[in-house]
Amino acid sequence: MTERAELPERLDVVGVGNALVDVLSHETDAVIARLGLAKGVMTMVEHGDVERIYAAQGTTTELSGGSTANTIAGLASFGAAVGFVGKVADDEFGKVFAHDLGALGVWYATPPATDGRATGRCHIMVTPDAERTMCTYLGVASDLTPADVDADLLTRAAVTYLEGYLFDQPAAKAAFRAAAETAHRAGRQVALTLSDPFCVNRHRAEFAELVEHGVDLLFANEEEILSLYETDAFDDAVARVRAHTEIAALTRSARGSVIVTGEGVQEVPSVPVEQLVDTTGAGDQYAAGFLYGLTHGRDLVTCGRLGSLAASEVIAHLGPRPATSLAQLAARNGLA
Amino acid sequence: MTERAELPERLDVVGVGNALVDVLSHETDAVIARLGLAKGVMTMVEHGDVERIYAAQGTTTELSGGSTANTIAGLASFGAAVGFVGKVADDEFGKVFAHDLGALGVWYATPPATDGRATGRCHIMVTPDAERTMCTYLGVASDLTPADVDADLLTRAAVTYLEGYLFDQPAAKAAFRAAAETAHRAGRQVALTLSDPFCVNRHRAEFAELVEHGVDLLFANEEEILSLYETDAFDDAVARVRAHTEIAALTRSARGSVIVTGEGVQEVPSVPVEQLVDTTGAGDQYAAGFLYGLTHGRDLVTCGRLGSLAASEVIAHLGPRPATSLAQLAARNGLA
Repeated sequence: MTERAELPERLDVVGVGNALVDVLSHETDAVIARLGLAKGVMTMVEHGDVERIYAAQGTTTELSGGSTANTIAGLASFGAAVGFVGKVADDEFGKVFAHDLGALGVWYATPPATDGRATGRCHIMVTPDAERTMCTYLGVASDLTPADVDADLLTRAAVTYLEGYLFDQPAAKAAFRAAAETAHRAGRQVALTLSDPFCVNRHRAEFAELVEHGVDLLFANEEEILSLYETDAFDDAVARVRAHTEIAALTRSARGSVIVTGEGVQEVPSVPVEQLVDTTGAGDQYAAGFLYGLTHGRDLVTCGRLGSLAASEVIAHLGPRPATSLAQLAARNGLA
Repeated sequence: MTERAELPERLDVVGVGNALVDVLSHETDAVIARLGLAKGVMTMVEHGDVERIYAAQGTTTELSGGSTANTIAGLASFGAAVGFVGKVADDEFGKVFAHDLGALGVWYATPPATDGRATGRCHIMVTPDAERTMCTYLGVASDLTPADVDADLLTRAAVTYLEGYLFDQPAAKAAFRAAAETAHRAGRQVALTLSDPFCVNRHRAEFAELVEHGVDLLFANEEEILSLYETDAFDDAVARVRAHTEIAALTRSARGSVIVTGEGVQEVPSVPVEQLVDTTGAGDQYAAGFLYGLTHGRDLVTCGRLGSLAASEVIAHLGPRPATSLAQLAARNGLA
């Protein structure tokens, strides 16, 4: 963390999301099966369940995580001016989470909770095929309330980026709505990521309403957008989202992404990787690249290419945040 | 952590040491210089200093560490029956530390402290040359007392393995002496690692006395043994240690190790690595390989080769503990 001046007049993106520390391990498919988990997805679990899952994990590594916080970390790595709003406890993991954002130059000042639940954790099991199965115990992250939504921070940001996961808890959902309202009232853009297909299942009607009336920019992967519109046909989902939202960036893993606007549909290829190590953070980093482009005046296809590039970096190593400078990576790839 | 039966009648090794969580980051040489740290060595720091150092670190990764605990983890990876004694707090890092030992099948039952200081941390900065500079804030680890030394556990173990770092705090030093006495009274062997050259500087007279009269097996690297005898000549140090201890295993990084006994001096080559990533844990894992061999009836040169092999595994990746099964690695190298 370097000494910093005052909060700048303008920020590119402020994220609002669950503040989580990732607890990663490598496990076999048999362990996932024995725990009765759905491979490749994120399951919300209660405290007792997360302890059972943790007990089944082998040697672990702890890293700062949280979907939106990962996107904000990626944006900082591109060189964007960014902030984050999310709740940790005044414990070791909370300090780690705040440290890691501070080290990246992210404006983060949500006061930590001094009593009650511990900092939230996401237990991530990476199987030999590089798929990750996640179990999240939100802990104090779900105690985020509208009072934590720093209006001054949000009104400085061109885009307020929100994660669907916030809908899983009433207080955090209220914080989500307060953040979106604050940003719109200040004439700023609101972006939403649908988070995961099960999250869409849990909140389909509200998400559909949000996409139609509450957000300016939507991020979703193929499964999420199919789930939102309860269809098996991607083209059908594209037509639906095109009618409903200004800009949608839909990711299809190795098949790249599709950018949907009122004017048309544009396809952007993925960036191939030499060795796929861990898909954790692929969607988060795609959003980082896209939002970096968008807030720096790039056309939408370049935004998508920046997203593909950032995603390719993060899936080639363990952990959900960039291990190298995305600004330099973009420069080396002619996208600076 | 799998369900386990009763504590077995016989264990191979029980380690007593500082229970620490490592906080790793990649930093440039300039950061190390700016912090006024001695590159490549471990510095003991107070709480205020460790916060200043943490603030200077970039994005961090948290992993269970502690020198002796790393050795015990390596022994477990070889398939040895092992235990550990060391103090954590009842906090997130303490739970991580206990989890990671449990996941490896290590017998670890030192009660966590429920008030007072937090779990100890070792802040490790890895420079581009793969050297690591470490700052340790012991926290509650230094509150280990003789009452924590589980005599039942120690008397079951063929070898009790102790780290020199325990001498840095009066209570932990008393615990060290209690452990050595307990093991010897039960007719077991006591092994010591000198930990680091600065640690030797701090406790030279007591370590020299220990080597002569208190331990059966000594681990040291070249700098440590030179520091112990205040000499610049390795051969001189070898002659001194030969007169004083039953077995000494002296490591010389890429030059391999030298095994010194009353009968003679044997040289064992190092195992070359394709890419040196992080030297953290090299000495700890050498000790793991050596102790595995020793407690499984191997000759001393094979013990040294097992040590070299384990060290070569750990320096090829980030983090101080094996990332692969050392039992399988030994088998693939004809050392099973």
